[in-house]
Amino acid sequence: MKETHFENIKTKESSLPERTAEQISKLIVEQHLTSEDKLPSEFELAELLHVGRGTIREGVKLLVARNVLEIRRGKGTYIAPNPGETPDPLGFAYYPDQFQLALDLAEIRAQTEPWVARMAAEHATTEDIRRLRESCAVVEQDILNERDHSQNDVLFHVAIAKCTQNMVVPKLIPIITYAVTLFVSLTESRLRMETLVGHREILEAIHDRDGQRAEKAMAQHIEYNRALLQEIVSKLKQEELSAPKKEDE
Amino acid sequence: MKETHFENIKTKESSLPERTAEQISKLIVEQHLTSEDKLPSEFELAELLHVGRGTIREGVKLLVARNVLEIRRGKGTYIAPNPGETPDPLGFAYYPDQFQLALDLAEIRAQTEPWVARMAAEHATTEDIRRLRESCAVVEQDILNERDHSQNDVLFHVAIAKCTQNMVVPKLIPIITYAVTLFVSLTESRLRMETLVGHREILEAIHDRDGQRAEKAMAQHIEYNRALLQEIVSKLKQEELSAPKKEDE
Repeated sequence: MKETHFENIKTKESSLPERTAEQISKLIVEQHLTSEDKLPSEFELAELLHVGRGTIREGVKLLVARNVLEIRRGKGTYIAPNPGETPDPLGFAYYPDQFQLALDLAEIRAQTEPWVARMAAEHATTEDIRRLRESCAVVEQDILNERDHSQNDVLFHVAIAKCTQNMVVPKLIPIITYAVTLFVSLTESRLRMETLVGHREILEAIHDRDGQRAEKAMAQHIEYNRALLQEIVSKLKQEELSAPKKEDE
Repeated sequence: MKETHFENIKTKESSLPERTAEQISKLIVEQHLTSEDKLPSEFELAELLHVGRGTIREGVKLLVARNVLEIRRGKGTYIAPNPGETPDPLGFAYYPDQFQLALDLAEIRAQTEPWVARMAAEHATTEDIRRLRESCAVVEQDILNERDHSQNDVLFHVAIAKCTQNMVVPKLIPIITYAVTLFVSLTESRLRMETLVGHREILEAIHDRDGQRAEKAMAQHIEYNRALLQEIVSKLKQEELSAPKKEDE
C-alpha cells in the first residue's frame, strides 16, 4: 500500500509528459499568454510543476507538435499565434474515400456559405470590404494568368467569413473548403470563368450591404461548384471501376 | 558548394523528425492503414525512409502527440481510431473571451443544426433512429436524476448528425457545441425541462421522416438555448465589470 501514490501516477491513463503538457497549457490559458509571450524557462516550469526538467522538455515537445507552442530559432519557445490550431484539424487526409469526402463537404458548403455571405453583408466594416476586394483581385489575377487559384480562392471565402464578425466562422471555412484544392486541377476553364463572375457578384452584394443578394449569389456559386464536382467525381469513380489502378508517384 | 545538400536539409523550415512524421503519415494514407493495423517496426521504417531509428522514434512521438498514432500498452504502436482528430481541434480553450466564443458558437448552431435535423429526417435509417431514441433516453435519465447532462446532450446532437449520412457533419457538431459544457452548470431547471421536451419533439419528427417539423423543432430548441445563454453571459459580464476579479482555483 505504501506504493499506492506512485502506482497511481504510473498507471494513470495519460503519461507524465502528457499531464505536464496539460499543466503548461492550463498555465497559458490562465495567464492569458499570447504569441507575444515567451514560455517561462524549463527551470522555472520544473520548479512550478514539481517535475524534472527532462519531463518539462517532453511536455513542451508535445505542445510544439500540437501547435500550442513554437520554437523561434535563436529566441526560445513562444506561444504559437493560433494555439492548438492544426492544418487538418479533422484528419481528412486519412479518410479512405476522398471522393465521398469532397461531395459531403460540398453539401455542407451549400448549406453554410449562403448564410455566411448574408451575415457578411449585414456586418462588414468598410475595412473588411476593402480587404475582400483585394482578395477578390488576387484570385482574378490567378485565373487570368492561368495559375492555380485554389489557395487564394479559400482565402477569399475566409475574407467573407471575417466580415460576419463571428470569430469561429472564419475558422470553419478552411475545414469545409478542404476538398477545393483536391479537385481544382480537374476543373475546366468554365469553372474558372464562373468563379470570376460569381466572386464579383458576391463582393458587390456585400459592398452594397445587400444580405439577400449576397446569400443568393453565394448559393449559386456553391451550387455551380458542387454540380461540377459531382460530375467529375462520377466520372472518376467510373474510371476507377473500369480501369486497372495506376500509381501516381 | 560541396555542402549545399547538407545545408539544405539543415535549413529547411521543418525539422528532420517533422519530415519523417510527414513520410510516415503519407505511408498510412497510401497504404490505407486503419486502427486495426500495427505500424511497421522502427527498424523497417528506418530502412524504408533512410533515416536513423532515433529519428523514427521522434517522428512517431510527433504523430502520437497529434493523435495519428497510438501506443497500446504491451502491444506496440498502432494507427489511432480517428487519425488526426483532436479533442479541441480549433484551440478554443486558448480563446481569451470565452463568453463571446459561446455566443458566436450559439449563432453558428442556430444556422446549422436546423438543416442538420431536416437532413437527418430525410436520410435516417431505422437503425439510426433506434440509436437516436436510446441517446435521447440517456439524456432524459440524466435530467430526471439531476445529473450533469451536457456530455450526453452533445452525443444526442451527434446522433442526429449521423442520421444525415454525411460523414463530416457528425465531426462538426462537437466543435460547434464546445461551449455547451462551459455553461451548463449555470443553466436553470427551466432549460432542463425544455431540453427534455425539445429533444423528444426532434426525435419524433425524425422518426416520422418529417424534415420540416424536425427543422422547426431544432430551430426552437437552439433558439431557446441561445436566448438563455445570452441572458447568462450578459449577467456574467456585468458581474465581471462590477466586481473585483476572484480566483477560482
